[in-house]
Amino acid sequence: MPKKPLFSYQTRIRFHETDSAGRLFFAHQLKLAHDAYEAFLEASGLPLAVIVREKPYDLPIVHTESDYLAPLFAGDPIRIDLTVDRIGRSSFVLSYELYDRHQQNVGRAQTVHVSVDSVTGKKIPLPDEVRRILE
Amino acid sequence: MPKKPLFSYQTRIRFHETDSAGRLFFAHQLKLAHDAYEAFLEASGLPLAVIVREKPYDLPIVHTESDYLAPLFAGDPIRIDLTVDRIGRSSFVLSYELYDRHQQNVGRAQTVHVSVDSVTGKKIPLPDEVRRILE
Amino acid sequence: MPKKPLFSYQTRIRFHETDSAGRLFFAHQLKLAHDAYEAFLEASGLPLAVIVREKPYDLPIVHTESDYLAPLFAGDPIRIDLTVDRIGRSSFVLSYELYDRHQQNVGRAQTVHVSVDSVTGKKIPLPDEVRRILE
Amino acid sequence: MPKKPLFSYQTRIRFHETDSAGRLFFAHQLKLAHDAYEAFLEASGLPLAVIVREKPYDLPIVHTESDYLAPLFAGDPIRIDLTVDRIGRSSFVLSYELYDRHQQNVGRAQTVHVSVDSVTGKKIPLPDEVRRILE
Repeated sequence: MPKKPLFSYQTRIRFHETDSAGRLFFAHQLKLAHDAYEAFLEASGLPLAVIVREKPYDLPIVHTESDYLAPLFAGDPIRIDLTVDRIGRSSFVLSYELYDRHQQNVGRAQTVHVSVDSVTGKKIPLPDEVRRILE
Repeated sequence: MPKKPLFSYQTRIRFHETDSAGRLFFAHQLKLAHDAYEAFLEASGLPLAVIVREKPYDLPIVHTESDYLAPLFAGDPIRIDLTVDRIGRSSFVLSYELYDRHQQNVGRAQTVHVSVDSVTGKKIPLPDEVRRILE
Repeated sequence: MPKKPLFSYQTRIRFHETDSAGRLFFAHQLKLAHDAYEAFLEASGLPLAVIVREKPYDLPIVHTESDYLAPLFAGDPIRIDLTVDRIGRSSFVLSYELYDRHQQNVGRAQTVHVSVDSVTGKKIPLPDEVRRILE
Repeated sequence: MPKKPLFSYQTRIRFHETDSAGRLFFAHQLKLAHDAYEAFLEASGLPLAVIVREKPYDLPIVHTESDYLAPLFAGDPIRIDLTVDRIGRSSFVLSYELYDRHQQNVGRAQTVHVSVDSVTGKKIPLPDEVRRILE
């Protein structure tokens, strides 16, 4: 049974996200996943803009994967369910499942984040405030 | 006194819409205006995807302008008010006013559309169903 | 007679720059114009990244316009000719003319830049090093 | 020892490919990989635009992965080496290695493509003309 998602994000495929093959351009699925991640951080009271501008740490993505299960077209409404796959000492893994209007699973993505010191770029333990919103 | 907008669209500036100067990349303001246009067409029962896929006409943009009144940052909520500036025999002009969370006018854009035959690409009179949703 | 361009930039329309109407998405024409501007600054020994990171001034775009004279398709090679339209006390205007493989003028764009203090954001006289590469 | 790449692609990180964290936005690494793929197909005499518009088959991406080994900044020149990882009966896997100006490996990506019938969308054997350019 799938885990209950930590966060759900609704959007629509926009024209500029499709290409002349008529479908969502593959890299834009990861852009949409990141939009869901940003909306999750906002809803959790720790907006990404605040992390980047004010916090002594960053959470860069070091690995990503994406699967394409069905084509998506301009105007299609989609729901992206965000789940925390794993929380490590200085990293975490997020999963994104995309569903179309018929609740069909049309794609998925994963992002692996590490926590680093903003100044040195060196790996640091995951800050408590980040750990808290992921748990 | 400003005209009452035909449609209002709410969104947020996403990270991928900013650049390393730290602000909304200028061309993306027009992308956001187009998102508002797509949302307006959907709300009017004439989605752009339906026009492109099924209708004998297209409504390509032949001219656009954009003004930048204040910088916009990642995470900023914005409202885009869409107004019809002019409806001609075979063209129409849309205006977009962008407002930040303090109702400050932070940018504006304009798109000029012509109606053309999908097959020949020749200018044709504005279809009635388009004229109707603009009036 | 058209002015001799200050700089010429060659590129190709990529898939992700087209949309499901099958053509270059209109806002991406301005993105391509900006690519030409960045290439011009690099070739002039004053890369935009250096301006943003190291210089006490910025050159934000306050206005832009774009005309679409013919559709552009994925894979189309294009040439963008950059011309300086006007140099003012604290601003400059650049024009971009797009040509397809048959030397047909398929689009044009314009960007209006002002020079501002990086810290205060206030308008300042155009720095000499910028003026020099524009003349 | 690394395989000799099938194709090398040179580009630069553009401003609109970075975000306000100051680096290449992660999803754009896959966009750049796809640019390399398009350039490879063009150089091989089988442009992607021709496949999409004229051929009875398509080569959609069903899976992608990407690793980020070092941050990339606006203006950075990069080289992308494209290698064929695997050719199956109706699929192929491409790898992309990104190198900065110091020949440091700064990122990598992979795209898995399947060949499908353009009309039915059903999996079909890899067309000979595609197999030929990959071998």
